[in-house]
Amino acid sequence: MNKRVRVVVFLKPGVLDAQGQAVETGLRALGFEASEVRVGKAFELTVPEEGWRERVRELCERFLTNPLIEDYEVFEREEVCVP
Amino acid sequence: MNKRVRVVVFLKPGVLDAQGQAVETGLRALGFEASEVRVGKAFELTVPEEGWRERVRELCERFLTNPLIEDYEVFEREEVCVP
Repeated sequence: MNKRVRVVVFLKPGVLDAQGQAVETGLRALGFEASEVRVGKAFELTVPEEGWRERVRELCERFLTNPLIEDYEVFEREEVCVP
Repeated sequence: MNKRVRVVVFLKPGVLDAQGQAVETGLRALGFEASEVRVGKAFELTVPEEGWRERVRELCERFLTNPLIEDYEVFEREEVCVP
């Protein structure tokens, strides 16, 4: 069995997010009230179910994120893709 | 009162995700079993609470996403999916 997983990655709170600032400026220019905008990455992938938490954690820390400056969260997705 | 909102954006299922394919290739090269990898964007922002659902929806469709090729989901920061 496989598991569908979503990973969401943002810069850590203290790290300057230039992209987020640019989006915030853009939103305000369009008349939207928005503040503290942060821009991050999202991944969805299908992994073997056995030991998936540990595998996904390793994958995040070695490949998908830079643990020095980024935080990530892992979510299970409902839809399981059966091959 | 303000509300902290997260928006997660992915290309629609039928749309070719070259970045996702590249990540998948990279993961496999590192020895991780992963398939159907998709790469998306994530935003977090603080908006005024009054009418926030409608405002965030408009903001997503006009600015944060391309509704022709992208799907998005909105979450309250407590991670409750907004229908």
